[in-house]
Amino acid sequence: MSACLTDDELASLNAYWQAANYLSVGQIYLMDNPLLRHPLSATDVKPRLLGHWGTTPGLNFVYTHLNRMICQHNTDVLFVCGPGHGGPAMVAQSWLEGSYSEIYPRVTRDEDGMRELFRQFSFPGGIPSHAAAETPGSIHEGGELGYSLPHAFGAAFDNPGLIVACVIGDGEAETGPLASAWQGIKFLNPQRDGAVLPILHLNDYKIASPTLLARSSDDDLMQLFRSQGWLPMVVSGDDPEDMHRQMATAMDSAFSTIRALQHQYRQKTPPDTLVRWPMLLLRSPKGWTGPRWVDDVKVEGLWRAHQVPLSACRENTQHRLQLQKWMKSYQPEKLFNQQGQPCDYLQTLVPRGDKRMGATPYANGGRLRQALKMPDFADYAVEVPAPGVEKAQATAVLGRLLAEIIRHNPDNFRLFAPDETESNRLGAVFDVTDRCWMGTITPDDRQLSSQGRVMEILSEHQCQGWLEGYLLSGRHGLFNCYEAFIHIIDSMFNQHAKWLKTSRLLSWRQPIASLNYLLASHVWQQDHNGYSHQDPGFIDHVVNKKADIVRVYLPPDANTLLWVSDHCLKSWDRINVIIAGKQPADQWLTMQAAVSHCQQGIGIWHWAGNERDNIEPDIVMACAGDVPTRETLAAVDWLRLAQPELRIRVVNVVDLLALQPRHKHPHGKPEQEFEALFTRDRPVIFAFHGYPGLIHRLISPRANQSRFHVHGFNEEGTTTTPFDMTVINRLDRFHLALDAIQRLALPPERQKYLSAELEDKLTAHYRYVREYGDDLPEVKNWRWNGREK
Amino acid sequence: MSACLTDDELASLNAYWQAANYLSVGQIYLMDNPLLRHPLSATDVKPRLLGHWGTTPGLNFVYTHLNRMICQHNTDVLFVCGPGHGGPAMVAQSWLEGSYSEIYPRVTRDEDGMRELFRQFSFPGGIPSHAAAETPGSIHEGGELGYSLPHAFGAAFDNPGLIVACVIGDGEAETGPLASAWQGIKFLNPQRDGAVLPILHLNDYKIASPTLLARSSDDDLMQLFRSQGWLPMVVSGDDPEDMHRQMATAMDSAFSTIRALQHQYRQKTPPDTLVRWPMLLLRSPKGWTGPRWVDDVKVEGLWRAHQVPLSACRENTQHRLQLQKWMKSYQPEKLFNQQGQPCDYLQTLVPRGDKRMGATPYANGGRLRQALKMPDFADYAVEVPAPGVEKAQATAVLGRLLAEIIRHNPDNFRLFAPDETESNRLGAVFDVTDRCWMGTITPDDRQLSSQGRVMEILSEHQCQGWLEGYLLSGRHGLFNCYEAFIHIIDSMFNQHAKWLKTSRLLSWRQPIASLNYLLASHVWQQDHNGYSHQDPGFIDHVVNKKADIVRVYLPPDANTLLWVSDHCLKSWDRINVIIAGKQPADQWLTMQAAVSHCQQGIGIWHWAGNERDNIEPDIVMACAGDVPTRETLAAVDWLRLAQPELRIRVVNVVDLLALQPRHKHPHGKPEQEFEALFTRDRPVIFAFHGYPGLIHRLISPRANQSRFHVHGFNEEGTTTTPFDMTVINRLDRFHLALDAIQRLALPPERQKYLSAELEDKLTAHYRYVREYGDDLPEVKNWRWNGREK
Repeated sequence: MSACLTDDELASLNAYWQAANYLSVGQIYLMDNPLLRHPLSATDVKPRLLGHWGTTPGLNFVYTHLNRMICQHNTDVLFVCGPGHGGPAMVAQSWLEGSYSEIYPRVTRDEDGMRELFRQFSFPGGIPSHAAAETPGSIHEGGELGYSLPHAFGAAFDNPGLIVACVIGDGEAETGPLASAWQGIKFLNPQRDGAVLPILHLNDYKIASPTLLARSSDDDLMQLFRSQGWLPMVVSGDDPEDMHRQMATAMDSAFSTIRALQHQYRQKTPPDTLVRWPMLLLRSPKGWTGPRWVDDVKVEGLWRAHQVPLSACRENTQHRLQLQKWMKSYQPEKLFNQQGQPCDYLQTLVPRGDKRMGATPYANGGRLRQALKMPDFADYAVEVPAPGVEKAQATAVLGRLLAEIIRHNPDNFRLFAPDETESNRLGAVFDVTDRCWMGTITPDDRQLSSQGRVMEILSEHQCQGWLEGYLLSGRHGLFNCYEAFIHIIDSMFNQHAKWLKTSRLLSWRQPIASLNYLLASHVWQQDHNGYSHQDPGFIDHVVNKKADIVRVYLPPDANTLLWVSDHCLKSWDRINVIIAGKQPADQWLTMQAAVSHCQQGIGIWHWAGNERDNIEPDIVMACAGDVPTRETLAAVDWLRLAQPELRIRVVNVVDLLALQPRHKHPHGKPEQEFEALFTRDRPVIFAFHGYPGLIHRLISPRANQSRFHVHGFNEEGTTTTPFDMTVINRLDRFHLALDAIQRLALPPERQKYLSAELEDKLTAHYRYVREYGDDLPEVKNWRWNGREK
Repeated sequence: MSACLTDDELASLNAYWQAANYLSVGQIYLMDNPLLRHPLSATDVKPRLLGHWGTTPGLNFVYTHLNRMICQHNTDVLFVCGPGHGGPAMVAQSWLEGSYSEIYPRVTRDEDGMRELFRQFSFPGGIPSHAAAETPGSIHEGGELGYSLPHAFGAAFDNPGLIVACVIGDGEAETGPLASAWQGIKFLNPQRDGAVLPILHLNDYKIASPTLLARSSDDDLMQLFRSQGWLPMVVSGDDPEDMHRQMATAMDSAFSTIRALQHQYRQKTPPDTLVRWPMLLLRSPKGWTGPRWVDDVKVEGLWRAHQVPLSACRENTQHRLQLQKWMKSYQPEKLFNQQGQPCDYLQTLVPRGDKRMGATPYANGGRLRQALKMPDFADYAVEVPAPGVEKAQATAVLGRLLAEIIRHNPDNFRLFAPDETESNRLGAVFDVTDRCWMGTITPDDRQLSSQGRVMEILSEHQCQGWLEGYLLSGRHGLFNCYEAFIHIIDSMFNQHAKWLKTSRLLSWRQPIASLNYLLASHVWQQDHNGYSHQDPGFIDHVVNKKADIVRVYLPPDANTLLWVSDHCLKSWDRINVIIAGKQPADQWLTMQAAVSHCQQGIGIWHWAGNERDNIEPDIVMACAGDVPTRETLAAVDWLRLAQPELRIRVVNVVDLLALQPRHKHPHGKPEQEFEALFTRDRPVIFAFHGYPGLIHRLISPRANQSRFHVHGFNEEGTTTTPFDMTVINRLDRFHLALDAIQRLALPPERQKYLSAELEDKLTAHYRYVREYGDDLPEVKNWRWNGREK
């Protein structure tokens, strides 16, 4: 091993590490007496001991060595802390380097501040136990394991000056999302992207049992990562001095390799094959430098060190004495001066200003965010001479707008998808860019290049994680996905929504671009793939999150989709879900009408109904979603012909959460407006894209809601025709009209007659579809009839 | 390469493969003229061409070679079809071997049957396009990619006689769940388990772009899998003859290695280190044997072969002629006799009876299912001399019952968890078993062995996938998980629920044991881990599925948890979600009372309220969940003391879906019973475990629901004290009592006075918790006061 550290450097590094460890232990245990000026008393110790010690010293070790690299290379490094539950480490480091006190001036860098630092940790009204939004330098909470490396890649894309150092716990490494994340290397272009330096932290145990990777041999691990394109280096042991030397050597090697690769590829044409990047395998004991034995039981290096190794320091004097001895083993008197400030010699190890990892703007992406250069969406409008005359594929139209956005924002916007961009009919983007691909490209391949801005991997987890990292470090993007399979990232959505909710309360965190989902190939357009592909429930999951954060849009046609997409891409600190169709479909609104309709969120389509001024209609036919809108209009068409004296109102909902009352959601309609739309007491037949229960839930605080009869997806699915999908779920025109007839005060004979006519149509459908495997020509060729009937 | 095939054998194998390919193409394209007795006409072709050709010939190739192995070794093989969208392959194979016509007699094994076989595929009223529940021999739908290998492991556990051959698509292999699934090898014990033979099918492209693994070198792939414990063999090429020889050799080697390993380890003490199992890497062209070029564009071997390579055979004569040529290239006249039956010489390649993969009982687990030997749950009851006197940890009590179940069912029940069994306080199971672990075990390790029946890996995806495979092949299990992180498998839950819904309609599929979730460490007991760990939304997701399938239980204490768990473990074809606490908590019901309460699902707790016979109470205090129940009782305690003349009813809900009307859920209470519980019009203060919107949704069809005031999780979370978690979400006793007071017709002065008293208590809480980081002693020490107040 090269002697890259002098003895003095080693001593300083070790002292810095000890200071961080001291400050970490203090956070877990103490509410007073931070410098141990007098023997620890019971009341110095917190009544509830919370935190995760096990991973913390390893995190501090890595962070300290990264500081050395930053000082040496004057480079920007973003620290992604996979074991985010080791929160005390990042907080301690930020306080040591001064960034903490700059962001939170009440936590000064002196004895009082240290007391506050300790006390606030995992304390009511204080800070959470994880590396959360509150933590300077963090873009990653780490409570739910698996997403550190996807986040790291997302942050590195289009940030050529950045190195993202990503610590991955060996527990986290067992998860699916992390296991597939190593493949990210196949999408990282040294010409335009920064570097990702994974540090797999093998400390042998999870909460209760050994980890699979830590029990693998070094040989197997080297092979595992080499075979995926990495250049792994091992740093292993428990003797601090030896480990510092190993780590310094490995870091030197990693940083110089990264710089050499970047230099090499930035001089010449894009690489045409996989570029191999360095990574570290760090084997160190769990709870390193902590108590080796507690109550005659071995702790250090084992699962017992996972959380709070000395569990009863308030009640048990032995524990308290051991804690004191443990803290004193770091020799605080050599680390902090009389005022409790870090000693001057430690400051030489701290990077300057924004180069400090706790202060880097890359972890507070809003500081770097540049507004997207947006073309005028109206330029892409579909001509709609009259409602229902033209057909268009909504997402294909959007594809043309997206292509222009990509062209105008060559390093600030990417499109993400699990191999579905073409299938979702956004193929127009391939007129201006490719899929990103760093591997071999054959002559038969199409639309692949190392410069591509469409990120496709068959892993919804990577798409989501990459996009999150990309947004959190200040850029913009859109995730297009089959509607059913977006459930794969339900839990990642949760975590991002929680992050946004928290970060919006922190004045120092600048707003980041919204996370935008385009769910195409939706439940009503998966007739060919069958039941497994039919699930509209993601929005049920979404609306549980804070109203400030989430928006759900169901544009009924292409022009409304353009407005909604433009709106979402210009928004910040939100999660927008857009559900849109990809098949040729009727177009209803001119661009002008679309703008005004979308701005309202919910609107009456006067051209579709036949109510008379100042007289309430007999019935409201409401709809949300493209297919439900078509079926509603077809039902209205039939009803108006069959029963011309019937007064019908058609209401279309684009902005789903506008159905909620204003006190529940900022877009919610006040009661008066709601009644102006849906009347006070007339029956409402509501054709909804998703599960009917969601509408009931959204309108539950509204008066007189039992008059809402919601049709939607009733969990009936299979491989069949598109129209039959609506029939088996009773969302089709015939069932809607049947329901309408049953809710109206018609003469019984008339009701019976009309119902029989609709039943006949359904029978004809059942027969035809089973005979010919196709939909009735009458249904396929149906067009909205604009005349007054 | 060894010449393990004679020329005759090779010819028969190839013919069998061609027959399967012919039958696959026929399913995708034809509705008539199955044997091509006359030139294909437009009306022979289906109007809508649906299906996935690309993967199908590879699947047929593997299946055919597995048949050879089954005949040779007379062994049970279960075929797990990762690329389930290649549904035509399994259906074709099942028809060829006869199992299809046995299960579906209307699809006879002759020309008429072949016509029906072709016509029904992806046809309304027919069969779905994927290897779904309808498909003989399948336990895996494969529409949502990622779960084939976890299913395979699940099926292999405790089935020592079984070999699970699992084809994994190279697209699927990019997903997270599949990437981590390879680790399953570290849990497979050759002594007691069957074998898993993964066949990674590299056919180069996904829907639209190359796959990452197919573009890796053979060297890298060999290293990747070797380093994870596998013994990979490559079968690669496009010449059928050569490929048959390669495949036969590789299969011979794989099967003999499997048998040798099993023989070796079944003779001696359990293995104390990882056992290395064979696997195959199969490189073959996408759409192999299909059209090479279509309309002057190359198809075979590329993404263009993914679905229907000739897309317009009805309209386009050229396409139709090319289809005819393609189908004739398989020489159907040599494969099927004049009656359309498979020729006799093909029958020699078919395994016998239940050894046929389409007939194996392992894929119809209900045929093998043995009822669990259940100890009497009442033996584990907690003594409850009076409500609220004793404390117990509900899940710890359940742990003792589970230990007995494990002891009584040594090869029929496993417990699954992402390293959380101990944390969820089920540690009693380690008195009778260990965690399963095939890797190195050190002297410091505890509760690990190759015989362990607790399956712990830090991957919710593997836990879920393993359990599904275990259940689908006829066994029983329970998945214990932190409540927040069960969202990780939302989408897997969806797919299993869809599978159950479909399979319940198939008379030939026998019922399998229910999938049981125990969600401990729930939202109200994650105060220490913070916001990322706080999410009760899984049940919102669950209730979207068919009522027949799902059940949600919220037992308020230990004895009710025992009843519920016993009930769920004895049920079949369902998904049961149980949410229970792990912390020491008040116990309310004797075993006798618990049984009667749980049987009702919802009940009035007369001992807790003070209503008088035949007079409706002033208010109903309802609760669901352990913590909400405690807070409700504490609120009632306070209200009864503060306002003794107030008549209060306490209603507790164990069986959440009993809140729905009977027409929505079989457990739903008829309107009359609902009113008998909740009154007709009195205010109901409902303290709910989860998001309040769910209760509104469940009761939305009920009359007069605006009187329900639901408190629950409002998405407010952080690291704080347990009681503070309820306060910030307004689910605590003080907010509940405040709400009650505001809903009652009390004199304004009295209302004001009582409100002020409660506000004072809240202020005292806020002060105390921020000062001491702990909950008010008054709150911590609160006990239900059983006296009449």
